Amino acid sequence: MQKWACGLTYLGSQYHGWQKQPTIAETVEAKVVEALSSVASHPVDIICAGRTDAGVHALNQVIHFSSDADRKPDNWLLGANRELPVDIKLQWVVPVDDDFHARYSATSRRYCYVIYNAPLSHPWLEGRVVWLPRPLLHIEGMREAAKSLIGEHDFSSFRDQDCQARHPVRTISSFDLVKHKHFCVFYCEANAFLHHMVRNMMGVLIDVGLGRQPVSWVGQVLAARDRSAAGVTASPTGLYLADVRYGKPWSGVFPAPLELQFPLLSEV
Amino acid sequence: MQKWACGLTYLGSQYHGWQKQPTIAETVEAKVVEALSSVASHPVDIICAGRTDAGVHALNQVIHFSSDADRKPDNWLLGANRELPVDIKLQWVVPVDDDFHARYSATSRRYCYVIYNAPLSHPWLEGRVVWLPRPLLHIEGMREAAKSLIGEHDFSSFRDQDCQARHPVRTISSFDLVKHKHFCVFYCEANAFLHHMVRNMMGVLIDVGLGRQPVSWVGQVLAARDRSAAGVTASPTGLYLADVRYGKPWSGVFPAPLELQFPLLSEV
Repeated sequence: MQKWACGLTYLGSQYHGWQKQPTIAETVEAKVVEALSSVASHPVDIICAGRTDAGVHALNQVIHFSSDADRKPDNWLLGANRELPVDIKLQWVVPVDDDFHARYSATSRRYCYVIYNAPLSHPWLEGRVVWLPRPLLHIEGMREAAKSLIGEHDFSSFRDQDCQARHPVRTISSFDLVKHKHFCVFYCEANAFLHHMVRNMMGVLIDVGLGRQPVSWVGQVLAARDRSAAGVTASPTGLYLADVRYGKPWSGVFPAPLELQFPLLSEV
Repeated sequence: MQKWACGLTYLGSQYHGWQKQPTIAETVEAKVVEALSSVASHPVDIICAGRTDAGVHALNQVIHFSSDADRKPDNWLLGANRELPVDIKLQWVVPVDDDFHARYSATSRRYCYVIYNAPLSHPWLEGRVVWLPRPLLHIEGMREAAKSLIGEHDFSSFRDQDCQARHPVRTISSFDLVKHKHFCVFYCEANAFLHHMVRNMMGVLIDVGLGRQPVSWVGQVLAARDRSAAGVTASPTGLYLADVRYGKPWSGVFPAPLELQFPLLSEV
């Protein structure tokens, strides 16, 4: 029996999220299970580092699975990619020791959230970013507000009512906002995230960016530890699971993921 | 009666090309006519600078239309964009004199063709580039071969049999290849193009890049003035009508188009 780790890229737009569900065929997990099982010639179970919601994308979702089928990394990689739809592809496959676990060995997850803050939407970006036309977002305010979420906190205010985590405490190690012309890109890294946590934090930050709430409001929402204190859940269209990090002995073992390179569009 | 010029961006994947056809509803022209007619409250006819094939995209297609409806540029722009599907949007609207003609006043068209030359396809790029996995394309050979097409030539070898142009002579003013990591991007500018001309030239250049043909073959194909001398027509998925240029008094009057900014993806 050999254990394998894989990096997976997908666009979530066409799927009901990651998790396989008995009555819903169109989940990312179901597609990946089907492809790997076909290459293995036996049913394969997979575990992912972070279950993404419906519509959320991934640049480097990490999964593991075990198989006694005699396959080389490229057999899994190219074989599964032949079976997978165009919007889900493996990026790398690496053999790992039995004690590797895609979810429990992960020390942090990094998400990115992409806002296209331009007067007009652009077809080329469709389904890949969130378009917010005027007003121009208050970048400094959003950046400052995001900083107030860094650290170990009870994130109950940003936790979906369906969240199954045992407790609401998480540690955000960084929450940066980088502006590239019309693109506002948030990068948030934490040990782990609650259900809808990034999208609920983004909903609050966007309210600040639009001038609907002051910067100080974000700290108040956090302190309230009450979901009703926060705002709307931001659209999944701009959200990417960008990377998953592992401690020793796994750090640096997996290939570096591909990232979006901004600004993506520019005037000639 | 006021004449208006507009810049239009679209993804061609879902459409049977530009031109309105009686039995096919899903053309770019039909969608734009419908949207502008709705804003005008009367049927509007439009003329474009370059009719794109099925599946071909545009970053800055230029069109004109006339209307006696009393509308400001922003009424047309925002009103039509509300009616248009997500993959077709106006980028600008400018009032023009009666003697402006989107097609006949144009002095040149610029196309770009995007190849993603990487071992693995990437879902994020799906429908927006042509993926050519190994081998690594012979960039210098393709660049040299492209140069041999520059100038005024009889392009019969790259002309589709359905082409309705009166003669096969066109003048290519530049044909550059720029490499950005895994992306090979061709930029071709000419006074005008024959039907399928860019895709037929790209088919030949890709054969050179893959090492199937020598660099000198491209000049031989051109000299043959015979469509059967060339190769396959390259996929429309990588092709964009990037810009249309106009001479005096129109040069510099229209807003600069947005362009794809490469490399789009990069390793962290």
